[in-house]
Amino acid sequence: MASLLLSRRDLDFLLHEWLDVESLTARPRFADHSRETFDAVLDLSETIAARHFAPHNKKNDAQEPRFDGERVHIIPEVEEALKVFAGAGLIGGGMDHEVGGMQLPSVVANACFAWFQAANVGTAAYPFLTIGNANLLLAHGTPGQIDTYVRPMVEGRFSGTMCLSEPQAGSSLADVRTRAEQADDGTYRLFGNKMWISGGDHELTENIVHLVLARIPGGPPGVKGLSLFIVPKVLVEADGTLGERNDVALAGLNHKMGYRGTTNTLLNFGEGAFRPGGTPGAVGFLVGEPHHGLSYMFHMMNEARIGVGLGATALGYTGYLHALDYARTRPQGRPLMARDATIPQIPIVGHPDVRRMLLAQKSYVEGALALILYCGRLLDDERTAPTADERASAGLLLDMLTPIAKSWPSQWCLEANNLAIQVHGGYGYTREYNVEQFYRDNRLNPIHEGTHGVHGLDLLGRKVVMDGGAGLRLLIETVSMTTARAVAAEGQVAGFGRQLDASVARVAAVTRRLWEAGDAETALANASVYLESVGHVVVAWMWLEQMLAAGGRGGAFYEGKRRAGQYFFRYELPRTEAQFALLESLDRTTLDMPADCF
Amino acid sequence: MASLLLSRRDLDFLLHEWLDVESLTARPRFADHSRETFDAVLDLSETIAARHFAPHNKKNDAQEPRFDGERVHIIPEVEEALKVFAGAGLIGGGMDHEVGGMQLPSVVANACFAWFQAANVGTAAYPFLTIGNANLLLAHGTPGQIDTYVRPMVEGRFSGTMCLSEPQAGSSLADVRTRAEQADDGTYRLFGNKMWISGGDHELTENIVHLVLARIPGGPPGVKGLSLFIVPKVLVEADGTLGERNDVALAGLNHKMGYRGTTNTLLNFGEGAFRPGGTPGAVGFLVGEPHHGLSYMFHMMNEARIGVGLGATALGYTGYLHALDYARTRPQGRPLMARDATIPQIPIVGHPDVRRMLLAQKSYVEGALALILYCGRLLDDERTAPTADERASAGLLLDMLTPIAKSWPSQWCLEANNLAIQVHGGYGYTREYNVEQFYRDNRLNPIHEGTHGVHGLDLLGRKVVMDGGAGLRLLIETVSMTTARAVAAEGQVAGFGRQLDASVARVAAVTRRLWEAGDAETALANASVYLESVGHVVVAWMWLEQMLAAGGRGGAFYEGKRRAGQYFFRYELPRTEAQFALLESLDRTTLDMPADCF
Repeated sequence: MASLLLSRRDLDFLLHEWLDVESLTARPRFADHSRETFDAVLDLSETIAARHFAPHNKKNDAQEPRFDGERVHIIPEVEEALKVFAGAGLIGGGMDHEVGGMQLPSVVANACFAWFQAANVGTAAYPFLTIGNANLLLAHGTPGQIDTYVRPMVEGRFSGTMCLSEPQAGSSLADVRTRAEQADDGTYRLFGNKMWISGGDHELTENIVHLVLARIPGGPPGVKGLSLFIVPKVLVEADGTLGERNDVALAGLNHKMGYRGTTNTLLNFGEGAFRPGGTPGAVGFLVGEPHHGLSYMFHMMNEARIGVGLGATALGYTGYLHALDYARTRPQGRPLMARDATIPQIPIVGHPDVRRMLLAQKSYVEGALALILYCGRLLDDERTAPTADERASAGLLLDMLTPIAKSWPSQWCLEANNLAIQVHGGYGYTREYNVEQFYRDNRLNPIHEGTHGVHGLDLLGRKVVMDGGAGLRLLIETVSMTTARAVAAEGQVAGFGRQLDASVARVAAVTRRLWEAGDAETALANASVYLESVGHVVVAWMWLEQMLAAGGRGGAFYEGKRRAGQYFFRYELPRTEAQFALLESLDRTTLDMPADCF
Repeated sequence: MASLLLSRRDLDFLLHEWLDVESLTARPRFADHSRETFDAVLDLSETIAARHFAPHNKKNDAQEPRFDGERVHIIPEVEEALKVFAGAGLIGGGMDHEVGGMQLPSVVANACFAWFQAANVGTAAYPFLTIGNANLLLAHGTPGQIDTYVRPMVEGRFSGTMCLSEPQAGSSLADVRTRAEQADDGTYRLFGNKMWISGGDHELTENIVHLVLARIPGGPPGVKGLSLFIVPKVLVEADGTLGERNDVALAGLNHKMGYRGTTNTLLNFGEGAFRPGGTPGAVGFLVGEPHHGLSYMFHMMNEARIGVGLGATALGYTGYLHALDYARTRPQGRPLMARDATIPQIPIVGHPDVRRMLLAQKSYVEGALALILYCGRLLDDERTAPTADERASAGLLLDMLTPIAKSWPSQWCLEANNLAIQVHGGYGYTREYNVEQFYRDNRLNPIHEGTHGVHGLDLLGRKVVMDGGAGLRLLIETVSMTTARAVAAEGQVAGFGRQLDASVARVAAVTRRLWEAGDAETALANASVYLESVGHVVVAWMWLEQMLAAGGRGGAFYEGKRRAGQYFFRYELPRTEAQFALLESLDRTTLDMPADCF
């Protein structure tokens, strides 16, 4: 039986038949690679995910991490899985050879990581955070910081976290209060509480490298006064051996609806649980310049946002494959028009409504996967395309797409999980089956790494207006190149190309209308609706791209792509018109609602 | 602080200012009642729900019922709560004085029951099932059966279940296999397995009265060969005392994502765990005529479907009130246009996107509650309206609305719970808060009592074509009476009235188009889309009714009704146009999708 995690056939289609990832090997950074090395690491990822991650996914949900006041207890399978993952070199998949990485293109590294998120998102979150942390330090740390912290992370001996939120400061990082006071030796001492820290405590690795946003006293208020610090759980001696325990203490675990395998913590810094060097405070090491912490953190966050989109996609994808498998094997009912109760039952995939739910899932998860891999390809181009213009253009388009790549899969691949439960009927609602966990796990994704609403404001309030609207123009031009190819190809895709042209024109007109009115409050009041409508247009574009890549080729796989694309253009894209009309009306219903009238 | 369960102010508005429930007291059946008795039983319900049901809602989720192979263990708070509920006479709330009931109108009894579903849907499910069971026997049982089984249920000594599904027969009742063989004494012996039986085993009551669908050998195949039996867990002697254990054995509990407080069971009938009278089989007593079992069961199911819609609504409603409370008290961020990070944070209800999520929830849960209470009022009219015409007309409209009353709240009040989590941010995703449980609990509702897809087929395939389309015509006429009032009232409601007129005309045109094509397969292919679009039109009608009832009256409550109605007409009703266009196109995407192309 084929894997119920992801479809390797689909990955191969997207990577090779569509994105032509092999062409990246012509660039110096990827010159050591080939289709064969890409295939090998994808094979390896699938195998490790299936053998070492998937088997304990349910167990880690049912027996979630537990804090006894001293230690965090985690089922042993997690540590074993992480050792295999690190041992295969996957933490450094996308990193430089120099630090022990494989120097894979991002698009391939993302495809590899999706297997682990599909198999066990709770366990996969530990390396997910470690990779983001290491990449930030590779970009902004000193050579000494890279040697001390990144190399052990690549080897799997250390893990990493990102410590932004506090109990009173979640979406509002301007309100971060954690304080960092400079000591005589040039290091800092941190005091404060950090909330929602995933992987914030455990004994899965020898050490945990916290990246912490804090304020150096005297700095500006708001986000412009935030600096970034490395705060290791255990201090590292000059020779790399572990020294004293730093004053980072676990105050408690959060107990979540899903994603239970990942510890999520409240951490106290500098509250005196430990006293490194005999002085108060958690020892921290400044990353880069003071007061530039948030811009460094955005390096990690932009990457993490694509990663959240990928995780949402992976959960949606495995849920879809589970639902499909169930639908093909569960007999129930008879063809709609059959009135004879004595003929045998048919598998439920034979019922149009079940096919509708499967097509919806397929269109969501394959559309989302295409978008995420496309973003990975853009990141590779931003870093390695031959000309500066190409690099800048890829970076600009990636900036535009990032809020959508985070939010759209978080919304619609969660809906895919909802439909996967529905296809299973009562069985899907039980913990004896897998899909209810996917749904619970996936529900986190619209919340972390910027809520849905925050990304709406990012897209409409920042991204579409930056550089005089250059990002939006580029997006529209890029989509238009696809629609022009579709129209030229004639047949069914030509019609969809014209449909998408009309939708893109609506995006342009609606955006203009929102901002031309000169009232930012009204323009932004429905930013989430804008995000959702543009997201649907972007994913329709991804489907047109896939239909063009499939062309008229025969076989069930290509036919499936064309049918799912047709579903998206007929059932999904038309949803946007009501959203555009609302936006165009400059509706103030939400703005004008008095708080006491609820 | 006001209750976070439901809004009594809203209930009073719906019952008295809109539905004029007091006028029912002019009818003989309700002559003993008055506004005061209605108020008293609503007060009592709120008090008992808050004091005895709500406090163990989380505990019953965390410590779900457990089967040790012999007995089912349930936290003691459940039995205590049920004793208080029964002791207050609430099981018989809507039943005749003659059997110990209060003879309340259904609309009032439903409003009372909503408090318990909002407080603790898992515990409330036991009396929910018992009431449905008792009502079925009151309608179709013999006087002896009523004495033996219904009276002890009303007193709270017995509880009831409905046993329809089997492992191989969920949506497809035609495939029920449980066999009922007649014994020499005229009773039956049952053999078979029943799946998904809520309340199927426990020790909360002295006895459990199972209502079981089974086949008497020699009967017709399919649903026309199903008969209905009373199969008590413990046999009842002629004098009402408990006798031998019947051969109904618990094979296991299902472990659900939510709704964990309610045992959900696989039951074996006649497998020899017990041998009543020394002979094989579970002793059963025929209800009504052989082979008419399904029609009797529909009596219970139609009532249960409204009850499922009510439960979905209650969960959505309490989630909304929790989210509102959180939004008013949680400071985070600053007004959109404020750039000064030193001013204090504002409560998140000040952010337009949070207000959007609250307005959406308000429009879903108050719209759903209006619909369910309206259906309760129709049931009262069907039973007690002065003329036969009025009774028939109420029954016909109720028939039309039942699939919507079940499905629409199950979809949109679940979405309300989704938004309640989102308003809470990370906190909402933790089990330390309440809203994640509401979301898990509510996810059951689109599955049981007929899946979403089954109700789509019921509405489009049965209800709109029955009696030559009489039901649909009546619905349209009834809605048109409301829109005519709205247009006559002028002002904002007049515009909404015209908008709804247009939507209703679309429903009529689309329905005609679907059936005029003469291709039932194509017509029914998108029955779920039809259900959803008509559902939105019906709830828009409910909002127009509420806006008319609020009129121009001053005060935050009425203003809130007008604003939430405005939200529904501007943000929600326009969604339907894309659905109507799809339906009108007689789209065959789902029908034509080959099963091997997924």
